[in-house]
Amino acid sequence: MEFSFLTMGTASALPTANRYPSAHILTVRERLFLIDCGEGAQMQMRKFGVSFAKIDNIFISHLHGDHLFGLFGLLFTMAMGGRTADLHIYAPGGFGKILSFFMDQFGEGIKYNIEFHPISCKEPLQIFDSRQLEVFAFPLVHRGETYGFLFKEKEPQLNVRKHLIEPYKLSLYDIARLKEGKDIVRSASFIDDDGTEVEYEETLKNEDFTYLPYKPRSFAYCTDTLPFKRLAGWIKGVDLIYHDSTYTKEFEELAKTTLHSTSEAAACCAKEAGAGKLVLGHYSSRYKSLDTMLSEAREVFPSTELAKEGMKFEIELEKFKE
Amino acid sequence: MEFSFLTMGTASALPTANRYPSAHILTVRERLFLIDCGEGAQMQMRKFGVSFAKIDNIFISHLHGDHLFGLFGLLFTMAMGGRTADLHIYAPGGFGKILSFFMDQFGEGIKYNIEFHPISCKEPLQIFDSRQLEVFAFPLVHRGETYGFLFKEKEPQLNVRKHLIEPYKLSLYDIARLKEGKDIVRSASFIDDDGTEVEYEETLKNEDFTYLPYKPRSFAYCTDTLPFKRLAGWIKGVDLIYHDSTYTKEFEELAKTTLHSTSEAAACCAKEAGAGKLVLGHYSSRYKSLDTMLSEAREVFPSTELAKEGMKFEIELEKFKE
Repeated sequence: MEFSFLTMGTASALPTANRYPSAHILTVRERLFLIDCGEGAQMQMRKFGVSFAKIDNIFISHLHGDHLFGLFGLLFTMAMGGRTADLHIYAPGGFGKILSFFMDQFGEGIKYNIEFHPISCKEPLQIFDSRQLEVFAFPLVHRGETYGFLFKEKEPQLNVRKHLIEPYKLSLYDIARLKEGKDIVRSASFIDDDGTEVEYEETLKNEDFTYLPYKPRSFAYCTDTLPFKRLAGWIKGVDLIYHDSTYTKEFEELAKTTLHSTSEAAACCAKEAGAGKLVLGHYSSRYKSLDTMLSEAREVFPSTELAKEGMKFEIELEKFKE
Repeated sequence: MEFSFLTMGTASALPTANRYPSAHILTVRERLFLIDCGEGAQMQMRKFGVSFAKIDNIFISHLHGDHLFGLFGLLFTMAMGGRTADLHIYAPGGFGKILSFFMDQFGEGIKYNIEFHPISCKEPLQIFDSRQLEVFAFPLVHRGETYGFLFKEKEPQLNVRKHLIEPYKLSLYDIARLKEGKDIVRSASFIDDDGTEVEYEETLKNEDFTYLPYKPRSFAYCTDTLPFKRLAGWIKGVDLIYHDSTYTKEFEELAKTTLHSTSEAAACCAKEAGAGKLVLGHYSSRYKSLDTMLSEAREVFPSTELAKEGMKFEIELEKFKE
């Protein structure tokens, strides 16, 4: 029941010898979701043992090269690997033209179907829905159309508190209804003092007889962006945030003009959202050491970590007891 | 007076965790020439300490992704680095459309001038000419228009054998002519037995009074290609060859159908060309060990080496003595 975020590229526009352009893998149980696909993503995936075949969905935040230029090689490599399954790509509308040009020029050997889902929203919008997971896109503030993504596990089916329902001798139908979150209303009777049977309507309130087996987990991807107030509200209570952290406070003005965030701004967002953990990334190439970046964020939001190529941030499954 | 070949990507179409797509640097004295630019080239360049600013010329052998997909990120990074110098790109004609599309979609921040030189030839053709170096393109046999490249240092100006010319008391003009490779024809005289002055025409043959200070060096880039007979003739006497070596002999048939070479075929080419050294590369991802690849080539051409990411093959300057 894995739910983890693997950072494979923590550079901003300029990669360095050790920092690659943006590309990350969110693993939700057996499924892998590729988030952004900067140059070198496929080599990083090989390096960190990511299975290409388990990726059916790719999310591109915006159409800047450092978030996109690894995609063409990957699409080609997937074809060479014998892929037949459909591949879904979620990206701003302008990607359609880029994909068409790529397929026209280089797509000869690509036989599998690529389905492009253009994103367009001003508020959080569900763009992916499966039995266990839904993904919402929301607009960020950056040059050109840019979206963040919120990945949310769905609430699992409820468990029933067996020792509590036993005395009621419920039918399988009623138990199924409890698991679906419904109350049970049924006629019952008791024998009165004078020996007569009194019928009445009995309600078994769902909350008294069921519990969530575990807490659904969530992850928010927020880069590239200038900090803005509404963001925290859109990702309220999220377990893990990966946030633009291009600069330290010293370069706050530069962050503003380039529409990026400082680590402190990222931390304010995480605090305001009541997040479980914050992971910083998308560092400017000017930083060799990221100590200041980290300490400035931790002053605001202690549960902050630095992303690094190959690091995996796991969200443990929090099970509830009967 | 460096003349060296740095291999930064030895993979064929499928990169692995350690092998990157094709990208190489030929250093000729202070100038760097980028040959092919597969995905991740700019990260490899950072890793191996290659100066982006020293690259003014990029040679693309053919328009397959594994030789090209690193170019877009590099062009952008050069712009971010403040480049103002013109950049020259030599590639098959189809590249023009790709460059136009890239500049249209992603080129906003690229202010320096990119000059595209389309290559088209059936025989070796000079495509670059400077004071010290010339580059020839020649057609290879592969899917789509594909070219190899021959880099040749020009013959340096001749040195004069000072102790031999001293008795002749030559003018500076005549010395300059000797250095340019010309003979000196001049009138001279001697005193005959009877005391009369006899005039005659004296020829100082260039070869008797001059010598090459060093041997001009050369390098041939031959990938991707099916082996073919004329190739060796076109690169006769070359010091160093980098040659397509996608397969071992076991997969000779596959090499034929995919229009690639075995290491043995590469060795035959090097032997036939009378090359100084052969470097193998462009390995299929099926090979973890390259021992067989190497031994099969060395049986034909002992002076064979395996390319590896970050390896530099230097051609020492061979100085001649007076």
